[in-house]
Amino acid sequence: MTNEGLLLILSGPSGTGKGTVVKNLMAGDPSIRFSVSATTRAPRPGETDGKEYFFLTRERFHEITADGKMLENAEYCGNCYGTPLTPILEWTAQGLDVVLDIEVQGGAQVKQKRPDAVGIFILPPSLQELEHRLRQRGTETEEGIRGRLQAARREIQAAVHYDYIVINDTVESAVAQIQAIIHAEKNKTSRNQELIERILKK
Amino acid sequence: MTNEGLLLILSGPSGTGKGTVVKNLMAGDPSIRFSVSATTRAPRPGETDGKEYFFLTRERFHEITADGKMLENAEYCGNCYGTPLTPILEWTAQGLDVVLDIEVQGGAQVKQKRPDAVGIFILPPSLQELEHRLRQRGTETEEGIRGRLQAARREIQAAVHYDYIVINDTVESAVAQIQAIIHAEKNKTSRNQELIERILKK
Repeated sequence: MTNEGLLLILSGPSGTGKGTVVKNLMAGDPSIRFSVSATTRAPRPGETDGKEYFFLTRERFHEITADGKMLENAEYCGNCYGTPLTPILEWTAQGLDVVLDIEVQGGAQVKQKRPDAVGIFILPPSLQELEHRLRQRGTETEEGIRGRLQAARREIQAAVHYDYIVINDTVESAVAQIQAIIHAEKNKTSRNQELIERILKK
Repeated sequence: MTNEGLLLILSGPSGTGKGTVVKNLMAGDPSIRFSVSATTRAPRPGETDGKEYFFLTRERFHEITADGKMLENAEYCGNCYGTPLTPILEWTAQGLDVVLDIEVQGGAQVKQKRPDAVGIFILPPSLQELEHRLRQRGTETEEGIRGRLQAARREIQAAVHYDYIVINDTVESAVAQIQAIIHAEKNKTSRNQELIERILKK
């Protein structure tokens, strides 16, 4: 099967448990890398450059973007955020799969530039369950929860643009489903044209 | 994920070990059914109606075909062969996955009528290995082996029209790859539109 690593776009509304799913997925597979975003916002206490984000000056950020080396980028609250392309290209060339944990607009940008990327949308079992999970966190006001649920509805509407959906019922099951998707994608004929030609030539 | 069973088109050149792969795949998953073809040829000694084939008269075969109830059909050496649609529809509605073990022309007919069918092409690791396996069988003349290798080349060229390729290096690995494909396909967004709508409605 193809030796090239996959580019995986993972999106899903806040409260779906996407972060835990990604952590468990990576813990179970040493050939998966996590794409760290770049930002121009200042690091918060405890944040390390290259871990939570690559912290860049505006000049450097715009330089990289102008060079075509941001896979996607956007501005929120006066700060720039983006996905650096170079590590992704290096890793996938080495056969490592790369996970982008990204919101739906960024995901759409990536898919447009890289139609070979695999879009996976993580869904909560239901909006009631999502509300329950958000309340359990205990970190949000009533208004905050309402806002997140509204945002979730909007984001879930974008799920149709993803290749796969995965319901995060239990973390184990969600991880197993993503693993199956990764394996199956490597068997896609579109990723293995060279292999077919090689068999025919010899 | 979707409750509807999948229609799996499995093709691959003679000697690739497709039969063994299918047998092992079915032994490991009680929700897979095998589509038995229909034919107008006479049963050979030891063959049972409904096991190797459904043995039909020409009249009955043409009746079913005229009714649109053959998913594909073809004539070889004066006999008709076809894939009865009714059991496939019944099984997939029950959530059972159905395997069609079919040659490439039949596979193309099925894919045209049912674009949702999942095409999987089983490849030998190499043509040398295929030749080795054909010789090991010890059932073919030198001319027979040459003929089969030529046919294999032609068939492998059709692999590009399949959704997935699976190399039958070991039976266990080929079966695991097909299982991953089945699981991943059930997560395809295109098969789960209703589920997304249901989450948004509630």
